[in-house]
Amino acid sequence: MHSEIDIKFMNLAFKEAEKAKGFVSPNPMVGAVIVKDERVIGRGFHSKSGMPHAEIEALKDCSEDTSGATLYCNLEPCCHSNKQTPPCVPEVIKAGFKRVVICNVDPNPEVSGKGIKALRDSGIEVEVGVLEPEGEKLNEVFFHSILSDTPFIHLKAAQTLDGKIQSFTGDSKWISNESCRKRSHGLRLTYDAILIGRETLNNDNPSLNIRMGVDANGKIPFRVILGDPEKFNWDSYLFREDIEKNIFITTNKIDSLDSLKRKIIEKGQVIENHNLIKSLIELKKLGIQSVLIEGGSKVLSSFLKEGLFNKLTIFQAPKLLGNGEGIFKSTNNLISDSLNLKITNTEVIEGNLMIELRKQCLQE
Amino acid sequence: MHSEIDIKFMNLAFKEAEKAKGFVSPNPMVGAVIVKDERVIGRGFHSKSGMPHAEIEALKDCSEDTSGATLYCNLEPCCHSNKQTPPCVPEVIKAGFKRVVICNVDPNPEVSGKGIKALRDSGIEVEVGVLEPEGEKLNEVFFHSILSDTPFIHLKAAQTLDGKIQSFTGDSKWISNESCRKRSHGLRLTYDAILIGRETLNNDNPSLNIRMGVDANGKIPFRVILGDPEKFNWDSYLFREDIEKNIFITTNKIDSLDSLKRKIIEKGQVIENHNLIKSLIELKKLGIQSVLIEGGSKVLSSFLKEGLFNKLTIFQAPKLLGNGEGIFKSTNNLISDSLNLKITNTEVIEGNLMIELRKQCLQE
Repeated sequence: MHSEIDIKFMNLAFKEAEKAKGFVSPNPMVGAVIVKDERVIGRGFHSKSGMPHAEIEALKDCSEDTSGATLYCNLEPCCHSNKQTPPCVPEVIKAGFKRVVICNVDPNPEVSGKGIKALRDSGIEVEVGVLEPEGEKLNEVFFHSILSDTPFIHLKAAQTLDGKIQSFTGDSKWISNESCRKRSHGLRLTYDAILIGRETLNNDNPSLNIRMGVDANGKIPFRVILGDPEKFNWDSYLFREDIEKNIFITTNKIDSLDSLKRKIIEKGQVIENHNLIKSLIELKKLGIQSVLIEGGSKVLSSFLKEGLFNKLTIFQAPKLLGNGEGIFKSTNNLISDSLNLKITNTEVIEGNLMIELRKQCLQE
Repeated sequence: MHSEIDIKFMNLAFKEAEKAKGFVSPNPMVGAVIVKDERVIGRGFHSKSGMPHAEIEALKDCSEDTSGATLYCNLEPCCHSNKQTPPCVPEVIKAGFKRVVICNVDPNPEVSGKGIKALRDSGIEVEVGVLEPEGEKLNEVFFHSILSDTPFIHLKAAQTLDGKIQSFTGDSKWISNESCRKRSHGLRLTYDAILIGRETLNNDNPSLNIRMGVDANGKIPFRVILGDPEKFNWDSYLFREDIEKNIFITTNKIDSLDSLKRKIIEKGQVIENHNLIKSLIELKKLGIQSVLIEGGSKVLSSFLKEGLFNKLTIFQAPKLLGNGEGIFKSTNNLISDSLNLKITNTEVIEGNLMIELRKQCLQE
């Protein structure tokens, strides 16, 4: 068991880390708090890839001498030098800390445990694992993508109580309430890319930017469109501006689309898709660590069926539509053949219900 | 604001009241606690219609003199004498209480406020409204049925995350987990009757008793079957025993069913139905204060469409079936034409989600 004091200051480090939400990819969100005699004397966070790490920012922020102080940090301080920023461990040692409290061990094999060892070798007392699960949740994208060839995939849908994401005529306005839609724009901020299918492109003509009072500080996520470019409505908003943010995952070979080829190449990057998993690997190679999937029934269903997701968020409104389309298409006739998920969180948001789910692990 | 001490002892009175859960209809659940110098010196509950009221039981239970003590009681003590039990107010006055703390005013027009007035007139200090909403929830059935011609109607269904209560082949085993099914049997205990449709009778052949570790103390709820007796499977369990508990709401006139008439009358009581609301009034006349509606799709849908329900409980399992039937059938094409409900409670029950809903009031 960790002390209440350590938990309190680690939560402050989380608060620092969260200040970088949406802007720090492909790096993790990291915050640091320096404490002396139970008073915070410095704090900082890692704001962006290439910028100083949280520990260094907290040291710069310090109002008094750090010797004998405690450093709280949600990720193991780094000790490797093959990156844009110098390693933090030597600076932490130099600062004369008595104790360093860490939430998560860095999963990056180049660091993992080595930073902690170096600190201990220099005589600093190191405590590891304070609020570990919360830290893993905070950096779930980083923890997945550092060890995987594919981005972190988050499926998102708004549905009625009877599981409809749209009526049979395609109407989906508005299933969830304004607070949930704001939350949804908040999710967009934290992902590198948003993925939709061709039907959503043509039916909803979405702008896929970040609005509804969420401060995106100019960030425009990548917009990934899945489907056959021959069927795209080329008058859609997405083809008017920020086209450098467009990525098309096509079911065709571009060479077979002679008449469209120029337009496609003008309006975005292309991944010639053979299957979903290969396309995701290509997205990762383009530097995309995380994808929020907002697509239509067909798209959501494909990812669900192939198990290609890390998280599913449903905003469920207490409405009964009575017909329409759900997120999952199947011909299952037995409940025992259902796709089983696991609820990891629920929250009532002004009368709507947010349900977060994960894949069910076989061991459970 | 009510004092913490009053809230604490009113919660103890609730605990007493709940001991009668399932056995006290058509009366409300009432508990009483007698407190002197912040010590409980007596407690009691109303166990069954015709048995002594909670206040009297608590007085009998008292270990010491009640003069100057405080009586906590979740319902206003009664002062009318046209019932099986004598009025409580004179006994309460006789006991010499200094103070009486009440949660809910009795909605029965014969009592409402008169009990409180009589207590005050005798010089007792009376405080009303401690945990009032919780008290209304505890006795929601009583509060509805005392003032209504129809029973309290509670719709219940287990559904998948995508809103299916069964597959298109009729399979529904098992959507929710064992803990939810236990909870469901617990609900059966607290209702006078369980209502199903003809399709559920024939497809599931249910026994509609109270099992799964719930102590029913021999109680068998009325079983109400809605539909055309010509299509009933007369080999079903329900026609083998406890047939005095069967009530058929038929869409036909019994006289038109000459060949079946004898069987129908032998196997239960009959309500010749013209519409749902009239049938519910007939059920109330038979002494049924509360009905738990256990589906299927057609039956639930009828009650939902006509707004004939007080409460809806969904046990939602995190499974995706992908096809099948939901609780609500409609041809709505616009989300804005959905039936709007209001979430009143949610609870995660061992990985399944219980969602309680009410009709949305127009004023809200």
